[in-house]
Amino acid sequence: MLATPVNAATVYPAPDRSTAGHVLEFPVSQPLALDAGVPLSPFSIAYQTYGALNADKSNAVLICHALTGDQFVASSNPVTGRPGWWTTMVGPGRPIDTNRFFVICSNVVGGCMGSTGPASTNPATGKPYGLELPVITIRDMVRAQAMLVDHLGIDKLFCVAGGSMGGMQVLQWAAMYPERVFSALPLATGARHSSQNIAFHEVGRQAIMADPDWCAGRYLENGSRPMKGLSVARMAAHITYMSDEALHRKFGRKLQDRAAPTFSFDAEFQIESYLRHQGTSFVERFDANSYLYVTRAMDYFDLAADYGGLLAQAFMKSNTRFCVVSFTSDWLFPTSDSRAIVHALNASGASVSFVEIETDKGHDAFLLDVPELFSTTRGFIDAAAKVRGI
Amino acid sequence: MLATPVNAATVYPAPDRSTAGHVLEFPVSQPLALDAGVPLSPFSIAYQTYGALNADKSNAVLICHALTGDQFVASSNPVTGRPGWWTTMVGPGRPIDTNRFFVICSNVVGGCMGSTGPASTNPATGKPYGLELPVITIRDMVRAQAMLVDHLGIDKLFCVAGGSMGGMQVLQWAAMYPERVFSALPLATGARHSSQNIAFHEVGRQAIMADPDWCAGRYLENGSRPMKGLSVARMAAHITYMSDEALHRKFGRKLQDRAAPTFSFDAEFQIESYLRHQGTSFVERFDANSYLYVTRAMDYFDLAADYGGLLAQAFMKSNTRFCVVSFTSDWLFPTSDSRAIVHALNASGASVSFVEIETDKGHDAFLLDVPELFSTTRGFIDAAAKVRGI
Repeated sequence: MLATPVNAATVYPAPDRSTAGHVLEFPVSQPLALDAGVPLSPFSIAYQTYGALNADKSNAVLICHALTGDQFVASSNPVTGRPGWWTTMVGPGRPIDTNRFFVICSNVVGGCMGSTGPASTNPATGKPYGLELPVITIRDMVRAQAMLVDHLGIDKLFCVAGGSMGGMQVLQWAAMYPERVFSALPLATGARHSSQNIAFHEVGRQAIMADPDWCAGRYLENGSRPMKGLSVARMAAHITYMSDEALHRKFGRKLQDRAAPTFSFDAEFQIESYLRHQGTSFVERFDANSYLYVTRAMDYFDLAADYGGLLAQAFMKSNTRFCVVSFTSDWLFPTSDSRAIVHALNASGASVSFVEIETDKGHDAFLLDVPELFSTTRGFIDAAAKVRGI
Repeated sequence: MLATPVNAATVYPAPDRSTAGHVLEFPVSQPLALDAGVPLSPFSIAYQTYGALNADKSNAVLICHALTGDQFVASSNPVTGRPGWWTTMVGPGRPIDTNRFFVICSNVVGGCMGSTGPASTNPATGKPYGLELPVITIRDMVRAQAMLVDHLGIDKLFCVAGGSMGGMQVLQWAAMYPERVFSALPLATGARHSSQNIAFHEVGRQAIMADPDWCAGRYLENGSRPMKGLSVARMAAHITYMSDEALHRKFGRKLQDRAAPTFSFDAEFQIESYLRHQGTSFVERFDANSYLYVTRAMDYFDLAADYGGLLAQAFMKSNTRFCVVSFTSDWLFPTSDSRAIVHALNASGASVSFVEIETDKGHDAFLLDVPELFSTTRGFIDAAAKVRGI
């Protein structure tokens, strides 16, 4: 159960049974074993499916969403009314073709679209968890997804795909459940979060925690929301999703709705107006404590560390077919991060193809209209489907 | 006159007569004509000098400070007790040798170390200006410096030098007063502020303005200080001063004072602890409204715009000798920004040498121990001094 947000005029209501899609509730008898050393129990996973599972259950594709994504990958989000976040990649006739594949997408544990997160009720107190929710890791998210996949009766996924934090989950799936992943598509991601990336996340978290409306994480009970802090966090993060070149192309130094500078602290430049809009529209749909938890999960991600510091060891038993994709202008997860994954996969003897796509669209390129991304992934998926006999 | 800060235990006192160094007061009869279209009057410039002016007044070097710098370029700051901010470059035997040159460094208008800024008293109200101070531009800063140089009886500066925002002032000097600048040393800078750079500044300003202790800019009268907001602003900016490589080398994913992750929102990683320290130590010494004004001045800087969009026109009559320096890992003012300056100088027929220095120290390299910077600038200065007969 999720608490109702305070200001319905400017904040979308938290998802409920009618808007979260399918919600799978795991009872106390089926706890989620968290890396933090405690069980999460009971807990819920909200998810969507698209297309139909075939008779031998060989055509299931799991999509893992990024930091602020949700389960509505290919259908409109009932809370915000916005289109699915990856309809360019997932849908009828798309590279991940819902006419051929049974697509599953779930909200991550720690999120705020129906899966258990910090806004959910802590059964021990009857109040929202807030910071009483244990810290969640990428591994925890993947373990929960595996329980969902079990529930759906699927032994082996045809493909696990995702970008950014979604790509981290893809790598974690391939490492933790190699026999359950036929193919893997990690996009614009890394096998660990860099120092600079942790730094940007920390700025965002400090912005949220500096907001007095955050109330040490207990804002839902206090009838407030740290909207200003969350907005600043989103603004800082959003810069990292774009490239310097694209910002120059789209905005440059153009002024907003004026012919000459007014010498003020208004949103004088278009880039300022755009960023402010990104901040204010984000707080309408995202929970501030979830932002803390999900950024923290990314910070902790360091796949090699679980394998004696050798990333190749993470994939040593893998028969999974990998396609790794990076984008030239992505400075959040630069191509060097993808190369490190590819080197490890090569060292482990895994099957891997790697494509670096030339674009100025920055990190967000994996979500945008980038034809070379579609042709690359379509080729990879179709070839894998042929081998898999789909 | 500057207001006294509220919390003397954690915030250094604002500079006064005993700590601001020399303070030159321009009376109402000598207003500063601001780009915003209004005069600033009366106003003050706080400055320091080092070395001795020679008989023909040909050995004066003006140092222009960066965003959060001050006039204490080569001597300890009496307020903070910290060493001068550029003692590697300026001092006896240094590339800018105070045994040979008469070095001048003034606090920019809009700053908070004794020059007129938003914490100064508005003569119209008797209260601190706050946001009633007109927006200040780089050109305004340079006009004020020219009035100081006039006051010191110096017609022509042997050199104007500075990095980052200091470099913007160097370029503005060369464009506006070509006959007064014998040589110019713009380091790690650009002829205009990029869209991405405006974006980062806007995040910082929004963080400050989101802090309820900012009080719409009237915090000094209200007995508060937006310390949390200013700290977040500094943290975000500080990331842009370093390179991804240097962060990886210095901090990587190392944990702070612990052997294993604790799965918490503490400063678990060293980079987090370091960034938090940068934030909290900055608020001790810098005024939040000044941060708004000085970042805004950088945002407005677009030298070509004053010359019909052609940067070369800005330097067309120039006999100044230029040495432009960039650093390979500087992503705030990348080498492409310096190249644009060099191309314009070449097109205008100016004398220019250009060095891109290989380092992983990022934008802050101009402030750090980078031997190639010292040898480059020493060579340039010595050659120019020979021509100038010093």
